[in-house]
Amino acid sequence: MFPETTNVVSVRWSGDGSGVTIVDQRLLPGEYVERDLRTVADIVDAIRSLAVRGAPAIGVTAAMGLAHLAGAAAAEGLNAPAFRARISEYGLALKGARPTAVNLAWAVDRVLRASGANEDPETAARAMRREADTILAEDRAMCRRIGELGASLIEDGMTVLTHCNTGALATAGIGTALAAVYVAHESGKRIQVVASETRPLLQGSRLTAWELQRAGIPVSVVGEGAVASLMQAGRVDCCIVGADRITRYGDVANKIGTYSHAVVARAHGVPFYVAAPFSTIDAATERGSQVHIEQRSPAEVLSAAGHLAPSAVAALNPAFDVTPASLVAAIITDRGIFRQPYDFGGASPAGPASPIL
Amino acid sequence: MFPETTNVVSVRWSGDGSGVTIVDQRLLPGEYVERDLRTVADIVDAIRSLAVRGAPAIGVTAAMGLAHLAGAAAAEGLNAPAFRARISEYGLALKGARPTAVNLAWAVDRVLRASGANEDPETAARAMRREADTILAEDRAMCRRIGELGASLIEDGMTVLTHCNTGALATAGIGTALAAVYVAHESGKRIQVVASETRPLLQGSRLTAWELQRAGIPVSVVGEGAVASLMQAGRVDCCIVGADRITRYGDVANKIGTYSHAVVARAHGVPFYVAAPFSTIDAATERGSQVHIEQRSPAEVLSAAGHLAPSAVAALNPAFDVTPASLVAAIITDRGIFRQPYDFGGASPAGPASPIL
Repeated sequence: MFPETTNVVSVRWSGDGSGVTIVDQRLLPGEYVERDLRTVADIVDAIRSLAVRGAPAIGVTAAMGLAHLAGAAAAEGLNAPAFRARISEYGLALKGARPTAVNLAWAVDRVLRASGANEDPETAARAMRREADTILAEDRAMCRRIGELGASLIEDGMTVLTHCNTGALATAGIGTALAAVYVAHESGKRIQVVASETRPLLQGSRLTAWELQRAGIPVSVVGEGAVASLMQAGRVDCCIVGADRITRYGDVANKIGTYSHAVVARAHGVPFYVAAPFSTIDAATERGSQVHIEQRSPAEVLSAAGHLAPSAVAALNPAFDVTPASLVAAIITDRGIFRQPYDFGGASPAGPASPIL
Repeated sequence: MFPETTNVVSVRWSGDGSGVTIVDQRLLPGEYVERDLRTVADIVDAIRSLAVRGAPAIGVTAAMGLAHLAGAAAAEGLNAPAFRARISEYGLALKGARPTAVNLAWAVDRVLRASGANEDPETAARAMRREADTILAEDRAMCRRIGELGASLIEDGMTVLTHCNTGALATAGIGTALAAVYVAHESGKRIQVVASETRPLLQGSRLTAWELQRAGIPVSVVGEGAVASLMQAGRVDCCIVGADRITRYGDVANKIGTYSHAVVARAHGVPFYVAAPFSTIDAATERGSQVHIEQRSPAEVLSAAGHLAPSAVAALNPAFDVTPASLVAAIITDRGIFRQPYDFGGASPAGPASPIL
């Protein structure tokens, strides 16, 4: 069943205290299914398979999951050393679920630290649960603050390009990059969003389009390859994306395709903004080249997506684009190879004077 | 049934003289099905639905189709004025099937001109058939010549990025951009190809990967969004793409996504080549901004592809990429908005000194 409110709660405590409940994002927009995560395997699998995704949401899920597992371990009556060993083992498993997002390790480490060094298991588990609640509350507040700051960069009438999904589904609150869009819309600015579909798993068309459509914000889906062409036509006013890790000097690791958008935005003078919780900053890593990039299964690229975009969402589908001569190193024809400057004015039928080869 | 030879014949005269036979490219790589086109509606539909695609193949198909239709009209015993009216009507219908590729109108006009002004229908139809045969033969020779010229730009050991499909399926011969790859491979150069998948219809993963795999040339499929990241890692040595229309001053209209690759190639110092028959040059159009860009159905973007890539083809699937700080206009966090130059070295836990907002 789809929730009726605009607000999507991507992660929460299960009603019966038995674990953590997430929205299974693999099934959207076709189906809205919640899943209860009870075991460490459940949580690791949900993170790894992208049932729960988005750096902040992953961090919150892992924090809450670890607190839940610690409570269960304490209830088993483990002694303190066995309890410590167990939660430390859980922490390693959770941190290993995905390597790129820094929030995951950061959230797990916070909950582990909250267990204290000398507490008995019951006391430690209660402290861990409080810390997980704090992380959850902080994540919501963080989203709101990012949204307000980001919205200050979005003017009335703007078309905003975003990539992947950085909204309510990706966080415990209203999102990061998409929070800026929500707050701008809320404050009465007439904006529209271009969501790049985000191959291979189509988080843009499946999740961002779904969230924005529910919120009544005009959204069009485009393939990644069409973004440069839209910018060339002056149809994008700014870009705003999220981040999985930001290095000391500001390099941004984010969903594949982000860098491409940044290069083409720069080429067209379109401002390129990154919105992320401060916990995304990994000051110990200086440069992006030092960030470990997760390589996922080729099957994701080689297969079609399992899900369609929500019904009635708009899309742009130009079949071609135009590359200016200035970007073309050579034109190879059956009458020779031509180089810049091109002038085919006297070309037909005898051909221009000077193919270079 | 799949043909056993490496050479794919994308368009040919039907064996029984009843029309033109094409390979239905919508079904590849899953199924190899040939279709006979007999009526003008068959031909227009095959072109519009991309059953036959690729600017040169479309031109050859339309030329052969028109010659076939002229033969049928002459056989009906139409008088000369009725015959002229009929073939002129066919020509308009064929030219209207797709608007961007210049070859289509060029090939149709050649066949119409070959009908002569004062011939009787039978004589005119025979002349049109000869002209269509000439166009077919020229297309094959053109492919070979482009392949040889293009191969001269590809060195041993290079990784070549290509987009969409510009091979045997897209022409009556061995292709345009992909011809360069075929000839380089044939001459013993050890090369590999990165095929960008080419959303929404996946001509890269469906057709280019299929052709190259049959030819024994190593190929990896990537999503459009991953190309910039590959170039950033130094993994692409040159780009070679086809063209649907080249303007007087060298602007290149081609499959959506081409321009994006050109922008990112320029940003990384990777040479960007265009390979196309000389007939692709439309000297009457000065600039790319004057080219009519076909807008296709949003359903293509909003739905998953109907076909998977060929089995056992490779793919690259990095889940993230890295955008250098220099391309980031601002980083918006819950602790403020940061601008360049970024230095988060003293950031944790108090935050850097100077968010600007």
